[in-house]
Amino acid sequence: MDKEKIILDSDPGEDDAVAILLAVGSPNIDLLGISTVGGNQSIDKVTYNARAVLKQAGREDIPVYQGADRPILRPLQSGAYVHGETGLNGTVVPEPTVPIGDKHGVNWIVETIMSHEPKTITLVPTGPLTNIALALRMEPAIAERVKRVVLMGGGVFEANKTAAAEFNIATDPEAARIVFEAPWDVTMVGLDVTHKALCKPDIQKEIEETCGKTGAFMSGLMDGFRAAYQANQDFVDPPVHDPCTVAYIIDESVLTTRRCNVEVVTQDGPALGETVADMRGPENPDSHTQVALKLDYDKFWAIVKDALLNVEKALA
Amino acid sequence: MDKEKIILDSDPGEDDAVAILLAVGSPNIDLLGISTVGGNQSIDKVTYNARAVLKQAGREDIPVYQGADRPILRPLQSGAYVHGETGLNGTVVPEPTVPIGDKHGVNWIVETIMSHEPKTITLVPTGPLTNIALALRMEPAIAERVKRVVLMGGGVFEANKTAAAEFNIATDPEAARIVFEAPWDVTMVGLDVTHKALCKPDIQKEIEETCGKTGAFMSGLMDGFRAAYQANQDFVDPPVHDPCTVAYIIDESVLTTRRCNVEVVTQDGPALGETVADMRGPENPDSHTQVALKLDYDKFWAIVKDALLNVEKALA
Amino acid sequence: MDKEKIILDSDPGEDDAVAILLAVGSPNIDLLGISTVGGNQSIDKVTYNARAVLKQAGREDIPVYQGADRPILRPLQSGAYVHGETGLNGTVVPEPTVPIGDKHGVNWIVETIMSHEPKTITLVPTGPLTNIALALRMEPAIAERVKRVVLMGGGVFEANKTAAAEFNIATDPEAARIVFEAPWDVTMVGLDVTHKALCKPDIQKEIEETCGKTGAFMSGLMDGFRAAYQANQDFVDPPVHDPCTVAYIIDESVLTTRRCNVEVVTQDGPALGETVADMRGPENPDSHTQVALKLDYDKFWAIVKDALLNVEKALA
Amino acid sequence: MDKEKIILDSDPGEDDAVAILLAVGSPNIDLLGISTVGGNQSIDKVTYNARAVLKQAGREDIPVYQGADRPILRPLQSGAYVHGETGLNGTVVPEPTVPIGDKHGVNWIVETIMSHEPKTITLVPTGPLTNIALALRMEPAIAERVKRVVLMGGGVFEANKTAAAEFNIATDPEAARIVFEAPWDVTMVGLDVTHKALCKPDIQKEIEETCGKTGAFMSGLMDGFRAAYQANQDFVDPPVHDPCTVAYIIDESVLTTRRCNVEVVTQDGPALGETVADMRGPENPDSHTQVALKLDYDKFWAIVKDALLNVEKALA
Repeated sequence: MDKEKIILDSDPGEDDAVAILLAVGSPNIDLLGISTVGGNQSIDKVTYNARAVLKQAGREDIPVYQGADRPILRPLQSGAYVHGETGLNGTVVPEPTVPIGDKHGVNWIVETIMSHEPKTITLVPTGPLTNIALALRMEPAIAERVKRVVLMGGGVFEANKTAAAEFNIATDPEAARIVFEAPWDVTMVGLDVTHKALCKPDIQKEIEETCGKTGAFMSGLMDGFRAAYQANQDFVDPPVHDPCTVAYIIDESVLTTRRCNVEVVTQDGPALGETVADMRGPENPDSHTQVALKLDYDKFWAIVKDALLNVEKALA
Repeated sequence: MDKEKIILDSDPGEDDAVAILLAVGSPNIDLLGISTVGGNQSIDKVTYNARAVLKQAGREDIPVYQGADRPILRPLQSGAYVHGETGLNGTVVPEPTVPIGDKHGVNWIVETIMSHEPKTITLVPTGPLTNIALALRMEPAIAERVKRVVLMGGGVFEANKTAAAEFNIATDPEAARIVFEAPWDVTMVGLDVTHKALCKPDIQKEIEETCGKTGAFMSGLMDGFRAAYQANQDFVDPPVHDPCTVAYIIDESVLTTRRCNVEVVTQDGPALGETVADMRGPENPDSHTQVALKLDYDKFWAIVKDALLNVEKALA
Repeated sequence: MDKEKIILDSDPGEDDAVAILLAVGSPNIDLLGISTVGGNQSIDKVTYNARAVLKQAGREDIPVYQGADRPILRPLQSGAYVHGETGLNGTVVPEPTVPIGDKHGVNWIVETIMSHEPKTITLVPTGPLTNIALALRMEPAIAERVKRVVLMGGGVFEANKTAAAEFNIATDPEAARIVFEAPWDVTMVGLDVTHKALCKPDIQKEIEETCGKTGAFMSGLMDGFRAAYQANQDFVDPPVHDPCTVAYIIDESVLTTRRCNVEVVTQDGPALGETVADMRGPENPDSHTQVALKLDYDKFWAIVKDALLNVEKALA
Repeated sequence: MDKEKIILDSDPGEDDAVAILLAVGSPNIDLLGISTVGGNQSIDKVTYNARAVLKQAGREDIPVYQGADRPILRPLQSGAYVHGETGLNGTVVPEPTVPIGDKHGVNWIVETIMSHEPKTITLVPTGPLTNIALALRMEPAIAERVKRVVLMGGGVFEANKTAAAEFNIATDPEAARIVFEAPWDVTMVGLDVTHKALCKPDIQKEIEETCGKTGAFMSGLMDGFRAAYQANQDFVDPPVHDPCTVAYIIDESVLTTRRCNVEVVTQDGPALGETVADMRGPENPDSHTQVALKLDYDKFWAIVKDALLNVEKALA
């Protein structure tokens, strides 16, 4: 089987960091590079974090391009209340040595997609959708040219930032609307599944004990993430949202999805940033969007652990 | 036990008709009267239907007052696509003989609440909330004086009129916002439970066989309602929404509820008319609103059947 | 010439007070009564003020009915910053002796319109349009039955509450939208003319010197109003908004109007409460709304002075 | 005097074409290049037109870069109803020979601004503000680095696309909001002045008679523009909107401006796309935005004619 080429558009963030490790460690994934976007923390910090995680994984050959610093229309309200001052809640990361890529993240996304064969590249956004929306407006042809978009964001029955909206979509609702309205295949990996991808203590311990330095790094991330989720979100264990996207690309059976229309609320008011999925009646196979509704918990963690082991092996 | 005095504010509609029969037939309910509101059908038709159902039940002593013909801000888009030309989908109803009450439904609501002892009257709206909102603006003191409001409308996880909104709330979102924001106790009996209150063929048959003319009337309503729901809503059996409110007043254990904040979306867009319930974190016991989440199906139908039997007995 | 029967719907307010004096003092006007609405101050205070001004004018035979205390959808933000603690900025008013009418202002409006011959009554709202909108929803037939609506509110090129909106419309935009959308004849007397109806010192002095106690009362109102407008609104002389409506009914030539479509902005944002008048192209004679664009300043004040003299004469 | 370096961001369009001629013909202006944006017509057509007008002016040395094909959030509703099938209403233009610049218009704008000395470049957008908004999001630093923005769009007292909004702003209200909110100096040259910049027959004739081929070209543009404005907009003579921006840069005394806050309405509804300028009270010298309110008609046309003569001379 060919590896699936992906572009990770990300704002690390603890769970974004795990998504990076997953992409790097899976034999099914060819991570072309990472574009960064302001979200969980400021653009400077998340770009640093992306590079540091690659350094940690021994993969500084993978390029990082800095993207948009703020949402299209609204001011950035960062996720520092969950991700802390650095975006990685005090986890110690190695200092990156490879410089940031010398073009704008949005331009890199466009050029990468347009210079590869049609339908060969999968976009994997795990932060606010600002870069992806800007890329669509800079080069509309990418909508036809990518293979698909598998994004972390939204929720059908769950929310976190507000009573109706998930953080990534609430942070840049206009960008999200642009992305969901574009004529490409979108898989929305939202809170309905990511809130089930809990890093329970037994899993964390298992990873820590079996995956060496990489497992210890992961475990450190989870300590900070757990503390934040306990303090802010009434969770006992932290949900590792973003890796669910990469896990789905590695093995689609990890998520149960449903094809249906999705609209993003851009009007101010209590539903701002909500992803309204039409769950009425039967599934709509003609819809270009699908939403993830169920997670295979054991399979998910097996995929993660397997990838972390691979990262660790390559390091050795 | 004292009977609970209720005002039914209604737009019959098949399921509103069943709610009337339930209120009339229960020994726990004292139905003070019915105010009508444009919704499932035009105000003339629903007022006629309310009076005809009372005639059918042998209870023309219960007064009917006609209320608002249309929503506060928006044009009426009636529910004729579900309830048919008459609002009762061709069911034959007896011609009412007692005239419509000689005051406006809204004024009757206000006067009735203000002339009874505080905290003795329960408002039971089963249509768009236009009358209730107008009553609040005509006499703000009713918010303190009623016992509670138990309404059919909205949904936490379910919708019907649009992908986000239930018919009653979508029909008059501004009225709904007024009602949910008022400082009274509101129980939202929404689609999460009413979509479970299906009139399956065995229940319908049992009622038809055991409840005489009243059972036959009920069964006729259900035939029309089933046909409409099969044609329009991808349902096999029709959900009898409105009686869930009255059943809850008769026996609260029929519904499982959760106290939480609810906001109504009045902004145009994909979420217009949605009831955004804050399901994050633990239940909020201080909230003045609660939402119904689960229905005890067997208990519900036992309550309905019991009431229909009582109606039939009183007729004989 | 027959007198024009008017209903004044008002929230006094210094300029509302002058409108009352104008209606009382003009031989062309038959003031059937006053309904009050929360706006410039709380409903209690404006109702008191309406009664006190009638007492001052020796016309406590004219009934006052209390209406809505707050806007339909939004909380009341009163005009106390312009009209002061009492609504009349410290002017001493006589204590009213006749009680408030014993029905709701909205019901009185409806009953009055429906009990008079069609097309004989003019509605003159000079506050937020809450009562008028509620009356339309309580009895839609009033839209066909009134002669016309002549209201103070809005502006084509001018604003005061915000950069886009006038106080009365901004206070209850939903009510305003209901009133402008109803199929009756509406004359919008907005800031474009009322900002020209300045009470300059020479006029004030002339009225004070020639109109006895009534002139002194008027002058006292204007002292308070001038001080508020100088402090808050960058005006040298206070604009007496509300009497422009009554003056137009007395003599239409006092205003130059233009028929055109008017839409009220009910969406949150910088234009909330704006009256968008379509000034493009030629006048639209088929429009049911017209906007006032020019004031004949001298004629206006001649009308006011004449009416104040009549009030004074009747007092003597 | 140094020439003012400008970037013209444009969607020609007859009046954009005149703006190009003005920029090319004025000794005070150094036109660095033109970026194009979908608006008056599709991006392909306006890019062609920009190149063709430069060819007509003998200035194909000035580069043209193609920008965004559509507004950020909303579908493009082009101005074909005013500008016709080609965007230039049937005027015959020479076929351009120099290819389109090989980078995206937005990237060219960013690179040009960032590679020049701070405060040396003036942005002159005469179409929808899509490119400018995208440039701000791609490189926030341009807000500090440009000298100023002088844009055609909006209106304080005038509108054309809707009763509240001007075409450029109404076409991409979100982009406009981004541009007006950015911390740079913005001069809004709106319909209040451009509707006065009428090309009356005597001016057109004078230009035609005195400016050779360039005058004939201009006159041809005006014939088509006049016909469209007579058919669609109730104008006798066509208003040449866009050159007012360039004329202001050439000689600021051609416009009377006022500093005040401006907000763009992005909410759906009757005011969508309106530029709400705060005209209350005195001018606000600290505002980073100013609006043009009056045009010196004779001076404007003298500037235009002078530039056209210069173009013609250079051609010869």
